[in-house]
Amino acid sequence: MTTIRKKIIQTNAASIRLQALKTGTINQVLKHFAAALITHAPAILHANKKDLQQMDTGNPLYDRLLLTPDRLKAISGSIQKVTKLADPAGKVLEKRTLPNGLLLEKITTPIGVVAAIFESRPNVVADIAALCLKSRNACVLKGSRDAYHTNRAIVKVLHQVLKNHELPASLVLLLPPQREVVQELFTATKYIDVIIPRGSNSLIQYVRKNSLVPVIETGAGVCHVYVHSKADVQMAVSIVVNAKTSRPSVCNAMDTVLVDEAIAPVFLKELTTALQQEQVVLYADAASYQLLKGYPWLHKARKEDYYREFLSLACAVKIVKNEAAALQHIAEHGTKHSEAIVTNDKKTADLFLQLVDAAAVYHNASTRFTDGEEFGLGAEVGISTQKLHARGPFALEKLVTEKWVLRGKGQVR
Amino acid sequence: MTTIRKKIIQTNAASIRLQALKTGTINQVLKHFAAALITHAPAILHANKKDLQQMDTGNPLYDRLLLTPDRLKAISGSIQKVTKLADPAGKVLEKRTLPNGLLLEKITTPIGVVAAIFESRPNVVADIAALCLKSRNACVLKGSRDAYHTNRAIVKVLHQVLKNHELPASLVLLLPPQREVVQELFTATKYIDVIIPRGSNSLIQYVRKNSLVPVIETGAGVCHVYVHSKADVQMAVSIVVNAKTSRPSVCNAMDTVLVDEAIAPVFLKELTTALQQEQVVLYADAASYQLLKGYPWLHKARKEDYYREFLSLACAVKIVKNEAAALQHIAEHGTKHSEAIVTNDKKTADLFLQLVDAAAVYHNASTRFTDGEEFGLGAEVGISTQKLHARGPFALEKLVTEKWVLRGKGQVR
Repeated sequence: MTTIRKKIIQTNAASIRLQALKTGTINQVLKHFAAALITHAPAILHANKKDLQQMDTGNPLYDRLLLTPDRLKAISGSIQKVTKLADPAGKVLEKRTLPNGLLLEKITTPIGVVAAIFESRPNVVADIAALCLKSRNACVLKGSRDAYHTNRAIVKVLHQVLKNHELPASLVLLLPPQREVVQELFTATKYIDVIIPRGSNSLIQYVRKNSLVPVIETGAGVCHVYVHSKADVQMAVSIVVNAKTSRPSVCNAMDTVLVDEAIAPVFLKELTTALQQEQVVLYADAASYQLLKGYPWLHKARKEDYYREFLSLACAVKIVKNEAAALQHIAEHGTKHSEAIVTNDKKTADLFLQLVDAAAVYHNASTRFTDGEEFGLGAEVGISTQKLHARGPFALEKLVTEKWVLRGKGQVR
Repeated sequence: MTTIRKKIIQTNAASIRLQALKTGTINQVLKHFAAALITHAPAILHANKKDLQQMDTGNPLYDRLLLTPDRLKAISGSIQKVTKLADPAGKVLEKRTLPNGLLLEKITTPIGVVAAIFESRPNVVADIAALCLKSRNACVLKGSRDAYHTNRAIVKVLHQVLKNHELPASLVLLLPPQREVVQELFTATKYIDVIIPRGSNSLIQYVRKNSLVPVIETGAGVCHVYVHSKADVQMAVSIVVNAKTSRPSVCNAMDTVLVDEAIAPVFLKELTTALQQEQVVLYADAASYQLLKGYPWLHKARKEDYYREFLSLACAVKIVKNEAAALQHIAEHGTKHSEAIVTNDKKTADLFLQLVDAAAVYHNASTRFTDGEEFGLGAEVGISTQKLHARGPFALEKLVTEKWVLRGKGQVR
C-alpha cells in the first residue's frame, strides 16, 4: 500500500469524528481558523513568496496566485461567513409513520470524505476546507504545484487549530502536487465518496475519464443571451455588455449573443457603440457580419466559434429567425450552465425558461448572477453543470447526502 | 456515426416534447399503456415463449424470465400505481426575491434522457419506462439478451400508445442486446444524462469503470443485523430470521449477524432452532463456532465470508465485544445499503443510527424494508448505494434534477 493510500484511509477513519460534532463546536473551529490565518499571516505570505519566485511575473496566473495582507483578510472573512450559514447536516427532510408502525425519517448527513482537485488560487484550499468541515466532511485536497507552499502553509494553520480542539489533523489531508497521487484518489472508491474537479476543462475531462469515484463536474460555461424581437433594446444592450465585460474570465460570462432578425439592425447598432469602448472582439455570422461592417474588431465566425468559452473580451454573434431557432442553437451549443432571454413578451420568456436545459435560466437579467453568494447560498465549491445531486452553485447545502432512519418495535416483512 | 448513436440523438431531441406535457396527459398515456399490456397479452406471452425456448428450464433465471397472464397483470397494475404517484417535476423547492429584486426559484425538472442497463426480469423494462415517462424523461433501455423478445414486445405496445397520443416512439428507445451498444451509451455524454445499471455486481462495476456519463449505482447489499447485549432475544431472533430467510435473493437480505459476546450463548441457541427449519448455512467465527457446534450446516468462516453478499439461505456469524467493535466491523465490511441494530437501549440505538454510514439504518426492525413501495415512494429504479443524488430507494421522486429560474427587470452585476 502506498503512503498516500494510507493517509487517505486515515482521513476516512477520522471522518467519523465529525459526525457527532455539534454546530457550535464546528463554528468555533472555523472562527479560530479564520483568526489564525491573520495571526499567521507572515508565515503564509512568506510561503506564498516562495511559490511566486518560481513563477514568471508575466504569467497570467501570477496575479491569481499572489497573496497580500488584504487578500488574506478576505479569505479569513470568507471563512467567518461560513460560520454564519445554516447547518446543512441533521435536517429532517421527511418524517412519517408507515402503516406497519415503523417511524421513518429522511435526514441529511455528511457525505463522508470529499476530495477536491483544483488549480492555482490560494483561497480555494481555505474555502473548500471550511465548507467541508462545516458540513462535517473530511476532505482530501489536491492543489496545483504552483501554489503548493501557500496551500501547505494554510493547511498547517488549520491543522494546528484542529489539534487545539482535539480533532485529528487527518480530517484535512493536503496531497503533494504530483499528478501520480491523483490516481490514488481515482481508485479509492472505498474511502472517498466524491471527487470535485475545479479548474480547466481539460482537468475536468481527465477526472471524468479516469475516476472510479463519483465525480461532480464544475464545468465550463458556454452561455448565451438571446435578444428576442420584443426586447427592450436598451435593457438588452445593458445585459449583454454586463454579461460579457464585467468579468470575462469567469464561467458565467456570456459567450454568444443571439438576436432575432427583426430587431437585429437596431440592437446591433446600439450594442457596438457600447462594446467598442471595451474593445470587445466579435465573431459574427454572415448576416450580422453585414450589419456590423465598420466595427473595428470584427471577424467572420467559424462553426467552432459557437462552441467556444471565450474567457476573454470576445464573443460570438448570431442572427436567428425566431425563438425556436434560438432554442435549437442553445440546445446544440450550450453547456447547460447559464442562459438568458431578454424580452417583454411573458409567454416567450416562460417558454424559454421551461425549455432551455441549463442550471440557471434568466429572463431580463445578466447570466453573471450564477454564483453561490448571489443566490444567497454562501461560498461554493464550484458551479455544477451536471444534473445529479447539485446543479448550479454547489454550495454548503449540497455537501450532504441523505440517510433513511427507521425505528421499530420488532417489525419484520 | 453509428445507427445506435443516431437513435440516441433522436431520443435526446424527442425528450423536449415531454417537458411541457401536463400531469394529466402523461397519466393518460400510462393508463393506456397499462391497459394495452392486457389487450396485447397474447403477443407478449408469445414473445416470452420465444425467449424461454432458448433457455434451459433448469436455469435459475428461467422462472424470473417466465411471464404468465397473472404476472403480466401485475406489471400492468404496477404501471397503474405510477399514475397515482405525485408528479415529481415542476415542484418549487425554493422561492425568494434577492436584494437586487431578482425573483429566484429552484424548480424540479426532468433529468432529460435516462439510460438503464438491466438483466432478465421482464417487469423491469415496463417499470423503468413508466417511471421515466411519468417524470418526463426520455429513456434508453438495454436489457439482457435472454429477455430480448419479451422486452421488444412490451416496448412495441408502448410505442403504439405513444403514437396514439401523437408522441414520438423515440422517447423510449430499446437497444439491441449486443454488449457493443453499451459503449455507445458510455460515450454519449452530450445526449444521455445518467446511466443506471441494475443487476449483478460485475455489471455495475463494468459500467462504473467504463462510463463517461454519470452513473447511479444500484448496488450490492452486504447487510448486517447487530444484536446488542441489551436486545430482546425473541425480537432479535425474529428479525434475523426474517432478514435472512423471507427473500434471500434480494439486496436487502441480511448477510452477517453480529452478536455481543454477553448475549451470544442465549441468542445463538434460540437462533439455531429457528434457522434449522430453513436449513440456513452458517459461516461462524471461532468463538461462535464453539457455541454452534452440533448445528448441521455449520462452516468455519474465512475472512472473505464477511464480505460476501450471499443471495441464498446462508449467512455469516460473528461475536463482537461491544458496539464499537460492531460499528468497526460494519464500516469495514458493509456496502452502505441497509444495517440494523436490535437493542432496548435507546442511547446505543441512537449512536448506531447516527454513526453507521448506510442508505438505510434500522432500530428493532428487519433490513428487508429497504424498498420504494415499503417506504411509500412507489416503484423504484433500484436501491442506490452511493451518496450522490439518490440514496436508498431510487424512486420517482428522484428522477428529476433542479433548475434555478431567475426573473428580472434588467438586473446586471
